[in-house]
Amino acid sequence: MSASDQQDKHGHISLVGAGPGDPDLLTLRAVERLSAADVVLFDDLASGPLLKHVRPGAELIAVGKRAGRVSPKQSQVSRLMVAYARMGKRVVRMKSGDPTIFGRLDEEIEAAREAGIPFEIVPGVTSATAAAAFAGFSLSKRGVARRVQFVTGHDVDGALPPDLDIAALADANATTCVFMGKATFAALTSKLLAHGLDPHTPALVASEVSLPTAAITRGSIVEIAAFLEGRPELGASIVIYGAAVPGSG
Amino acid sequence: MSASDQQDKHGHISLVGAGPGDPDLLTLRAVERLSAADVVLFDDLASGPLLKHVRPGAELIAVGKRAGRVSPKQSQVSRLMVAYARMGKRVVRMKSGDPTIFGRLDEEIEAAREAGIPFEIVPGVTSATAAAAFAGFSLSKRGVARRVQFVTGHDVDGALPPDLDIAALADANATTCVFMGKATFAALTSKLLAHGLDPHTPALVASEVSLPTAAITRGSIVEIAAFLEGRPELGASIVIYGAAVPGSG
Repeated sequence: MSASDQQDKHGHISLVGAGPGDPDLLTLRAVERLSAADVVLFDDLASGPLLKHVRPGAELIAVGKRAGRVSPKQSQVSRLMVAYARMGKRVVRMKSGDPTIFGRLDEEIEAAREAGIPFEIVPGVTSATAAAAFAGFSLSKRGVARRVQFVTGHDVDGALPPDLDIAALADANATTCVFMGKATFAALTSKLLAHGLDPHTPALVASEVSLPTAAITRGSIVEIAAFLEGRPELGASIVIYGAAVPGSG
Repeated sequence: MSASDQQDKHGHISLVGAGPGDPDLLTLRAVERLSAADVVLFDDLASGPLLKHVRPGAELIAVGKRAGRVSPKQSQVSRLMVAYARMGKRVVRMKSGDPTIFGRLDEEIEAAREAGIPFEIVPGVTSATAAAAFAGFSLSKRGVARRVQFVTGHDVDGALPPDLDIAALADANATTCVFMGKATFAALTSKLLAHGLDPHTPALVASEVSLPTAAITRGSIVEIAAFLEGRPELGASIVIYGAAVPGSG
């Protein structure tokens, strides 16, 4: 293919939020982009029933982590995305939840910009609000939780990130949602308690939010930390704590 | 109608996130609930084209604030919602954005619970992530912004809430999204600078996100505070600041 052919074909990249997993929580725009795509790059979390909207003949490429299989590096995903767009394809990169919240979007945005390929970000429902909706409460609550904050409990190497602002996180009058914090929540809790957070602060862990297998466990932050230590097999989970979280009673 | 008739009819309340305003950012579930509703209570922000999914014959009730008109009190909205559900109606209460984030959901949840009426919360796309998507950046950024936080700049009386955690908000290594903060952002900025936040911290204000009238203004946090002081007429806006916000250059 000549350079002018490539220029004529107008590739495009859509970085699409797939929501928490339930296909009914896709936006109409996400469905439209999936239906129009020539190529769909998807993570495991944003897969299965979500892909029913993809038209027959489109290429489906799994780029997420799978048990026992090495997942492609982020840079390889970016390269693949750009390579297809350069062939004039409409590329959809599906990301679970909302892509602007712990979606590791920066490298993909940069790759599209550097390649001069038009791109868009389609926001989605983040698993934090889906978890609250499922649990039946509001993350913000007048006079109780005026601040809502999201952090990740999982660094590149799987450990608790070393540079968390523990003072900001030890405030029971904020509602804190910890993404990917299952394995490190006990370590985080120790730091929060050392900083003065009440061990009775209500908390919950929501697993596989919005899927048929969704489950919620409630307790004090200390109880939830202990619960998580015994359950490495638990599916994708989000931990939420703070005074606005309904008690376990 | 007798009490047994009422019990037979199975009223239901759906508290539905309408997303930031663009009807394409409704979820499939929101569309389904709107289509099936007997009664839809909506705010002005969650109106217009969003309501095209409502079936002919359903009751549409505007409960939001409008210029020059007194809006119904929150308790009146809750009463209305419960009264219709008690008549066996499928009631949809549409809330702009995601209902669990500054959606004033608590009273409505409580009213449904007290009345013993089954309810659900349907999460939506929050205007914070829609604004970031529109501006083309990620709210979280590895090594730059590990914490994403949402606050409201607007108390019941319209003033800056007095109990904000300024230390948590003065952290440039978090990305902070201020909802309904247009009128009070200058006051907030003064407090942040007094607490040591760099006046050159990048910021943006996004107005009428996802609508055809959407606009973004970028600058330092001080420039954005000055910009907002001169524009009380600006539509619904969200301010975002922190090191992850792309500069104005």
